[in-house]
Amino acid sequence: MLSLVDLRTRISAGTLDPVGAVALSRDAIAAREASLGALVHVASDPVIPRDGPLAGIAVGIKDIIDTADMPTQMGSALYAGWRPKADAAIVSRLRALGAVPLAKTATCPFASRDPSATVNPHDSAHTPGGSSAGSAAAVAAGLLPLALGTQTAGSVIRPAAFCGIAAIKPSFRLLPTVGVKTFSWALDTIGLFGAGIRDVAQALALLADRPALDLPAGGIAAPRIGLVLQDFADSADPEAVAALQRAARAAEAAGATVTDLALPPQLAEAWAIHMTVQDFEARQALAWEYAHHREALGPDLRAELDGAQALDAASYDAARRTAHRARRVLKDLFGEVDALLTFSAPGRAPAGLTSTGDARFNRLWTLMGVPCVNLPVPGDGLPLGVQIVARFGDDGRALAVARAIEAALAR
Amino acid sequence: MLSLVDLRTRISAGTLDPVGAVALSRDAIAAREASLGALVHVASDPVIPRDGPLAGIAVGIKDIIDTADMPTQMGSALYAGWRPKADAAIVSRLRALGAVPLAKTATCPFASRDPSATVNPHDSAHTPGGSSAGSAAAVAAGLLPLALGTQTAGSVIRPAAFCGIAAIKPSFRLLPTVGVKTFSWALDTIGLFGAGIRDVAQALALLADRPALDLPAGGIAAPRIGLVLQDFADSADPEAVAALQRAARAAEAAGATVTDLALPPQLAEAWAIHMTVQDFEARQALAWEYAHHREALGPDLRAELDGAQALDAASYDAARRTAHRARRVLKDLFGEVDALLTFSAPGRAPAGLTSTGDARFNRLWTLMGVPCVNLPVPGDGLPLGVQIVARFGDDGRALAVARAIEAALAR
Repeated sequence: MLSLVDLRTRISAGTLDPVGAVALSRDAIAAREASLGALVHVASDPVIPRDGPLAGIAVGIKDIIDTADMPTQMGSALYAGWRPKADAAIVSRLRALGAVPLAKTATCPFASRDPSATVNPHDSAHTPGGSSAGSAAAVAAGLLPLALGTQTAGSVIRPAAFCGIAAIKPSFRLLPTVGVKTFSWALDTIGLFGAGIRDVAQALALLADRPALDLPAGGIAAPRIGLVLQDFADSADPEAVAALQRAARAAEAAGATVTDLALPPQLAEAWAIHMTVQDFEARQALAWEYAHHREALGPDLRAELDGAQALDAASYDAARRTAHRARRVLKDLFGEVDALLTFSAPGRAPAGLTSTGDARFNRLWTLMGVPCVNLPVPGDGLPLGVQIVARFGDDGRALAVARAIEAALAR
Repeated sequence: MLSLVDLRTRISAGTLDPVGAVALSRDAIAAREASLGALVHVASDPVIPRDGPLAGIAVGIKDIIDTADMPTQMGSALYAGWRPKADAAIVSRLRALGAVPLAKTATCPFASRDPSATVNPHDSAHTPGGSSAGSAAAVAAGLLPLALGTQTAGSVIRPAAFCGIAAIKPSFRLLPTVGVKTFSWALDTIGLFGAGIRDVAQALALLADRPALDLPAGGIAAPRIGLVLQDFADSADPEAVAALQRAARAAEAAGATVTDLALPPQLAEAWAIHMTVQDFEARQALAWEYAHHREALGPDLRAELDGAQALDAASYDAARRTAHRARRVLKDLFGEVDALLTFSAPGRAPAGLTSTGDARFNRLWTLMGVPCVNLPVPGDGLPLGVQIVARFGDDGRALAVARAIEAALAR
């Protein structure tokens, strides 16, 4: 994989220049993209800034995120060739930092569940996950050192786990969603994919303009970690349980205290109403597409929106109150632990390309708006990942804990 | 003015049909728009549904709100002729209810402060207010029975006050902002303009799909009203103070208890940081326009964004915490009173067309996300309005209190 931190170190040392760094991505794309299906558009002659903290970093932009110089097609024939007027706010920020938005990455239509044409880089007979399929696969396959995804249920953490790369879904609205096609305004969150925790930490600190989010030089001292199984979401595969235990032991080896933690019932209640919030808002956000082009939507999305037509405002309002109560309970919980350690997905990437997998271990955290990090757990076969969750606004702590476990796992 | 409720009553009674109702708007536009400057585009041959609870209601759409069948030009030459792909969610909702989005209304560029070409319908030498200038002026001049605006500081309540019409800025995100050009995602709120309180109440209940928001048949019994001067925002003109007192006496005549209420200091603190939240987000939301077309921005907006470049994330994060504390204090306050009665603007519409007036009595409430209603106070000369504010989510109560005072003022 291409590591953002490694590339930037080489550029700073003068052994690589930004043009050369972007050429590494171009070469990798030429060699591997044809069999991957991760990209839907590659910029032919982008400006490559010489300066800036992300100069030389080629970035993949999920194709529901507006770009003024590349089409933005939402993974849907409805938006074939569509050219937005302006860059999304996050794309403008990337450019201001010197990065090069090099490619638009494949997405499920409107960031929903109907699969894109992308395959898992580790085994083309398996899904890469979704909906940020192309972004995860492109980083995992070494095409790009950084890619943007979005998560409304589990569309960042799940594909990162399936593809074996680091990712962060930051605190809600830490990164601006202006210019990102809306599915659910209370949930949609921009996330970052990178080769390792250090890469996504550095990218997030720069994009959010909050240097303190980057990893502290001395690491994090003896974090208190709660091990969470999310029973309300049913059980995970034995391999996922084993990976979670490996990560827990690695955390302890790194000096953490790990204790089993049963989540209060208010969190199970919130988990259960995530889809009510999502679908009530999706019905409004995609009302034009549904009213005028229902037959052209993917079958999964069409079925979801068909079902959403029956949701009433009272159910939605009740769901928002349930979520509000759960956020308070979770805030109190983070007085007792620094981070939670839980599953990123029910198991390895499922076989087949007709489903992008299950977001059941991700929904709650997206609804809570708290930062979530996927950390790959090294091993044989298709990748497995674990999820580190921290308090709202404490993205730096989630990353520091993830980095400590990552380092321990590598020893 | 054209009253939504009156038109709907006539249509239900069979004395008017939807085509005829829309023709009333077309005729009024033909007669008065040339001297008003309220509209930037009128649909030439829109579909006029026969059915639906808003059939026959011609609606003005502020020109930062996406329409698939009309240009959306943001009040800026940068977006001259721009055609979005899809309708904004609120436009889709209007169409689903049978309404006819008939015209795009003039707006300050990007809903900021540089004036549009609109004049005040009561005196063309005075500003109609902004940024939803065209929407307010079009309803006040009798061109349309309903218009959509947006408020980030005071862009709905202020122009409604200056133009002498009813308006509501609903609770934050009660109406979806998907497809509305963002200025500040924590503040931007869609609002409604109508001839009277009954008109905006009926429109809001339908658009939000929450019938309980419409006015209760029996009115509201003996509301407790807090009279608020917002001293932290400096004093209002003597005429505005007199109008506020008139409204208070009318409220008492309608059975309300009105008591002077000094707001806790946390609310003054929140008022003071509204601009920090607004400008830090505007810098990101309009980053593409600023980076590529700074010289083409209006001078006020350019100056605002110039200043915003120096804001740091720490100030923004602190401002959000200040706002969060104030929301809790305000919630407690609404345990003691049903509604607040305060100024909609510092006075009547100022003379001249170089400024849209001052939003200082509006900022706090937008930041708090609470519902605000403008109620015109009848009198001589240019209009004066008062503002009724209720608890977050209690839009129906704000409207019921406003209606009670409106009825008492008319007696």
